[in-house]
Amino acid sequence: MSTRIPRSKDNDYTKEMADERRAFATEKTGASLEHVGNYSFDPAITAGNIENFMGVAQVPIGLAGPLLVNGEHAQGEFYIPMATAEGTLVASYNRGMRLLREAGGVKVSVVDDAMQRAPVFLFDDAREARAFGEWVTENFDAIKDAAESTTKSGKLRNIEQYAAARMQYLRFNFTTGDAAGQNMVGKATFFACEWIKANYPEKINRYILSGAMDTDKKHSQLNTLHSRGKRVIAEATIPGHLIRSIMGTTAESLFKMRAISQVGNFMAGSVNTGAHSANGITAMFIATGQDVANVAESSAAITFADLDDDDNYYIAITIPSLIIASFGGGTGLATQNECLKMLGCDGSGKAHKLAEIIGGVVLAGELSLSSAVLAGDWVSSHDALGRNR
Amino acid sequence: MSTRIPRSKDNDYTKEMADERRAFATEKTGASLEHVGNYSFDPAITAGNIENFMGVAQVPIGLAGPLLVNGEHAQGEFYIPMATAEGTLVASYNRGMRLLREAGGVKVSVVDDAMQRAPVFLFDDAREARAFGEWVTENFDAIKDAAESTTKSGKLRNIEQYAAARMQYLRFNFTTGDAAGQNMVGKATFFACEWIKANYPEKINRYILSGAMDTDKKHSQLNTLHSRGKRVIAEATIPGHLIRSIMGTTAESLFKMRAISQVGNFMAGSVNTGAHSANGITAMFIATGQDVANVAESSAAITFADLDDDDNYYIAITIPSLIIASFGGGTGLATQNECLKMLGCDGSGKAHKLAEIIGGVVLAGELSLSSAVLAGDWVSSHDALGRNR
Amino acid sequence: MSTRIPRSKDNDYTKEMADERRAFATEKTGASLEHVGNYSFDPAITAGNIENFMGVAQVPIGLAGPLLVNGEHAQGEFYIPMATAEGTLVASYNRGMRLLREAGGVKVSVVDDAMQRAPVFLFDDAREARAFGEWVTENFDAIKDAAESTTKSGKLRNIEQYAAARMQYLRFNFTTGDAAGQNMVGKATFFACEWIKANYPEKINRYILSGAMDTDKKHSQLNTLHSRGKRVIAEATIPGHLIRSIMGTTAESLFKMRAISQVGNFMAGSVNTGAHSANGITAMFIATGQDVANVAESSAAITFADLDDDDNYYIAITIPSLIIASFGGGTGLATQNECLKMLGCDGSGKAHKLAEIIGGVVLAGELSLSSAVLAGDWVSSHDALGRNR
Amino acid sequence: MSTRIPRSKDNDYTKEMADERRAFATEKTGASLEHVGNYSFDPAITAGNIENFMGVAQVPIGLAGPLLVNGEHAQGEFYIPMATAEGTLVASYNRGMRLLREAGGVKVSVVDDAMQRAPVFLFDDAREARAFGEWVTENFDAIKDAAESTTKSGKLRNIEQYAAARMQYLRFNFTTGDAAGQNMVGKATFFACEWIKANYPEKINRYILSGAMDTDKKHSQLNTLHSRGKRVIAEATIPGHLIRSIMGTTAESLFKMRAISQVGNFMAGSVNTGAHSANGITAMFIATGQDVANVAESSAAITFADLDDDDNYYIAITIPSLIIASFGGGTGLATQNECLKMLGCDGSGKAHKLAEIIGGVVLAGELSLSSAVLAGDWVSSHDALGRNR
Repeated sequence: MSTRIPRSKDNDYTKEMADERRAFATEKTGASLEHVGNYSFDPAITAGNIENFMGVAQVPIGLAGPLLVNGEHAQGEFYIPMATAEGTLVASYNRGMRLLREAGGVKVSVVDDAMQRAPVFLFDDAREARAFGEWVTENFDAIKDAAESTTKSGKLRNIEQYAAARMQYLRFNFTTGDAAGQNMVGKATFFACEWIKANYPEKINRYILSGAMDTDKKHSQLNTLHSRGKRVIAEATIPGHLIRSIMGTTAESLFKMRAISQVGNFMAGSVNTGAHSANGITAMFIATGQDVANVAESSAAITFADLDDDDNYYIAITIPSLIIASFGGGTGLATQNECLKMLGCDGSGKAHKLAEIIGGVVLAGELSLSSAVLAGDWVSSHDALGRNR
Repeated sequence: MSTRIPRSKDNDYTKEMADERRAFATEKTGASLEHVGNYSFDPAITAGNIENFMGVAQVPIGLAGPLLVNGEHAQGEFYIPMATAEGTLVASYNRGMRLLREAGGVKVSVVDDAMQRAPVFLFDDAREARAFGEWVTENFDAIKDAAESTTKSGKLRNIEQYAAARMQYLRFNFTTGDAAGQNMVGKATFFACEWIKANYPEKINRYILSGAMDTDKKHSQLNTLHSRGKRVIAEATIPGHLIRSIMGTTAESLFKMRAISQVGNFMAGSVNTGAHSANGITAMFIATGQDVANVAESSAAITFADLDDDDNYYIAITIPSLIIASFGGGTGLATQNECLKMLGCDGSGKAHKLAEIIGGVVLAGELSLSSAVLAGDWVSSHDALGRNR
Repeated sequence: MSTRIPRSKDNDYTKEMADERRAFATEKTGASLEHVGNYSFDPAITAGNIENFMGVAQVPIGLAGPLLVNGEHAQGEFYIPMATAEGTLVASYNRGMRLLREAGGVKVSVVDDAMQRAPVFLFDDAREARAFGEWVTENFDAIKDAAESTTKSGKLRNIEQYAAARMQYLRFNFTTGDAAGQNMVGKATFFACEWIKANYPEKINRYILSGAMDTDKKHSQLNTLHSRGKRVIAEATIPGHLIRSIMGTTAESLFKMRAISQVGNFMAGSVNTGAHSANGITAMFIATGQDVANVAESSAAITFADLDDDDNYYIAITIPSLIIASFGGGTGLATQNECLKMLGCDGSGKAHKLAEIIGGVVLAGELSLSSAVLAGDWVSSHDALGRNR
Repeated sequence: MSTRIPRSKDNDYTKEMADERRAFATEKTGASLEHVGNYSFDPAITAGNIENFMGVAQVPIGLAGPLLVNGEHAQGEFYIPMATAEGTLVASYNRGMRLLREAGGVKVSVVDDAMQRAPVFLFDDAREARAFGEWVTENFDAIKDAAESTTKSGKLRNIEQYAAARMQYLRFNFTTGDAAGQNMVGKATFFACEWIKANYPEKINRYILSGAMDTDKKHSQLNTLHSRGKRVIAEATIPGHLIRSIMGTTAESLFKMRAISQVGNFMAGSVNTGAHSANGITAMFIATGQDVANVAESSAAITFADLDDDDNYYIAITIPSLIIASFGGGTGLATQNECLKMLGCDGSGKAHKLAEIIGGVVLAGELSLSSAVLAGDWVSSHDALGRNR
């Protein structure tokens, strides 16, 4: 038998083709793929989302909430679908949501928004690169026109420039409406670069569409500084008595712990000064059809806490690179779209709302885990709900 | 109606409870959850994996391969299930696998293996902390006994120590068999710390089970240096003519591009000097029941390339923090277990094999994307297969 | 006897006061300060440079060169004063200068120039902070007027903004003429902040003149990205036969070594991908009266190399944060001013020229040490000239 | 006239040769070097410290103190020589020393001590590299013997290992007595590597004496984690009333400011969470004959603060890479040795004492600058003492 995975010329996205591929895989590997074959949608809807479709992963979804959000787009109580296989995760976030609700809710704001593609241009020496950089600044409007000719919703906001050796690294920042926009900005930047190549009056030795300063699917300090996707800040002020009654620790203890963990974070060279934002983000990304690989970037975070004289604990988490969409990518898939609808976040004009809800979920998880570590019930809750082997 | 998500005392993991929760969510939000309710397993198997179970996310799986692996545990051709909603991803990895196969396969090795929990101990001054650190070194065997009393498969390998101010940060390194082991090492470290607290002859002001040097669910330079989970190195040597015929670019071009992207990476402060390892890792993590939030750590990578006089391109990717399991966590779930079986990686003694296969997949993706960027077909392939809007 | 160091009301900068302080120190410590008392200038010139003046450190100066520079400000051959106590340093740099001269010289360019002060403003929540940020952008001209009212040579170029929690971090970028400008921009930013405080129509809880994003006297990734002081790029193309004859290694060996050291650099989390730029920079900073503590920032560097088909080795070093002055600070002191005059770099309009010369020196040192490591004469040269004990 | 700097075969370290070189430099550049020629020692003592000696830089020294130190080696009051040209620096540190003295002094401890050289070994693949690493571990004693055969005071403590691609990076950690030891460990590591090359039973393709993980003359996260030179912790507890009366601010204000600056530090990617330790370190390095280029590494720092219920402010600064010597290098030069004698730190057995004193000085400077920023007298003091132009 051939090693070649079955493909069809005409319509690759049919139940029959999926069946054929599973049969092929079973024959090759001996593994039954009965559950993988259990999906409830027409494979045609996955065109554009996947190649060689053969079935689905069924990832358990737990229900958490209500999360009380005071956003600019998300207002009120939300029930949160979290897709994960990690015991205690849903319960822990749920506990944080309860605390936030008792405290009056979580305030969430999107303070920046951009998606990038970062080409690099090569010259004979640094001065040529510098001159090119100045020309780019002077010709921004024309470059913007070239970029935006390829897209309805992408808008070129600005171009950052970084110089090293005889290279000029450009970082194009687009707003992308309700899509995450990585592909959209790739195409728009490509057209912009081609326009530059055709119109720059001096010699360009070469350009490469990515000079590694985008930094797609990987965390970078640059993302922390200049954002990628949405920059989301979730804040709450929690009265000390609630921390005592619900979390079994104190506001002062939470506050003091931060200074100690900051030192650990700094020595480790960690990209996140909080506890575990990746947990909540990943669970919501899977549930709502986001590009889950963006957890690489979206898992960065900056936390800040304060304590006032009345024992109120102020806590904020800043997520500098939350990459999400309410439209495009996997958001139209069957379960994913249902989960977006649960949040009132499917389709046009809903990306900021979704970003706010995710921000609130993340803060709930920070409060819950930090408290558990201090209250000493971290290990025991894993024993009860999860699998400490 | 109550805001409270339905829960039962007796058996929370039944079809009825899941139905009740979906009905509750639908009533609260107006969203139909028909597809979410379409799962093919008995909810009882999710006990220990999730709370408030209400259904599943159906994530499309594409089939790629064969990937020809020359590992110490994985040997031969493998067909790879990749769960994603990102168009072109499976096709791109598939192309890289083809190149690797033509070139004789990918060599993969696991060179380190450890899972951490990192408590911090607080003292009155730096000297007390230093004395404590020396005591810990001297009493390692007894601490190891205390830690290992809680687990069959976890073994305490060593304890790193880091000093700052009046704190002593310990980082416990365990091997954890075929489990990822985060919970196992949390419990073992907790018991070790309690033993230390009971036996240290001088005063300890306090200890906290995590001093933020573990660094769980977040990338850190410390992980890149000292590994977290498996440290996996995938290598291949590709004849130049294959790069030309299959990838449409040249070995020299790939080689020279690296120096330029390294500068971009360095300026950006990126945690990964490669292209997009998170894509392949995430798709396999979802398919095989891994803790997907560990993409935060697992997405770090170090690439290295060389070019010999015969136009052979050597490329290696080192993944310093690949956190995976063939046992425990989500590996026993329905579709997840099927996908592990496809790879011959379910159950005892298979974690290293799985790590090797994932390493090979990652290298395939690096070759494919790097080539596409240079050959100029990056944007056009997204146009054909994906959704450039 | 009092513990109090002698001070005078009227004129603290006299030979008598210096004598008195040395006598005091000798009495307190038993140490003779004969050499410290040997200086050749009127202490009055140190007013503004030091308090409690008691004498001088005599740091040996070695002479290197000629360095052949092709700058936009520095043109031709320069003899370089290097103040150091590290054996082999001058000899090593000298060797690199010889290589550069044989190769036609080093091309150096200043591609960016800014000095920063970075205040932080505190608000009740993130939205207030965001609104404030927008107001700052809209009122840039008035803020610029307020800042520039305090200085003749300082010009406010732009204000970067970074948001986290309920804080808005501003980073004021000034050009500062021929002064390094740290104090100048501190004062200008203070006046700008006071103007903001007086004119912002909403409530500001507080501002702090430094929110730690300046980052004065410490390296940061932010400096590498956005420069601090001068961003200087030194480049050269060295024929392979010169590398063989003068350095005892080959162009290919130098080129290939980079890929290996880049991996080491990345794993270490090093802030400089070159060899030892701090050595040359420090020696010139001491000799020419710079603020030597700025070695903290100025020691960052980015290297890039290429090899063409004719065995020519292209090497560039980018120094993103070279903080120097030809005027102000210690540049008017006795030996320091002489050394600046040797370079034709004292006084008005000479800061860029000095930056170019230092850039060239740094590249000479990179070539020399890299070659020595490869040629195996690194240890032996230290044995011959220095002190391997 | 020749471009060649005068050199003599017989004795390069004479007054006559220095005169000749200054005359040469003056002829070439037109600059008088009268002050540079004013030194008070026999040039013969600079042999081993410099090449092409032509005179000295006279760097002003200010006297600060007394600094009250509670060290394990330094005990009591010290008067501190600080060499700088930056106005207000000595006054500011002096103010901090006064505060520390009123508060009962500064406690300083050296908690770690090592100097590194980090070679890299190249193999055909990752498995060969891994096998080599295991062999190194097994043969540590013999490697240690080979290394220590070259030095009286250097002792090989341990070898860290880091794996990537087909390279094995070793990091040799030595204690080096009272010398800084960079050259000593370079030679010892070279001999160890030659021994390894001769004795390893399998093929080594090549080794390079530095694989860039030492990281000499540049900061790295690795140094912050594993120390380079001395790891020094300076601590003090300051009663709130002293902060008010001497510094014009409050303990609470200092404490709260830290959380805000930590966020700025983290976003900037700064290598030092304190204020300006490089200032004090550099001034003492120049005065006492240290290798000033090591400010690159020594300027990293970790700060931690706490506030108790009685308004006592605990502050600690951890300097992970303080590279200093009481012997060797420039410590025997004329003024440098006098300054070491002032501190009772010249010669054998005094390196730890010197490290403690420098640690105490650094903490004084942190307190002073932090307070000035908060009290609002930062700008005005620069106006009075320095040069705000």
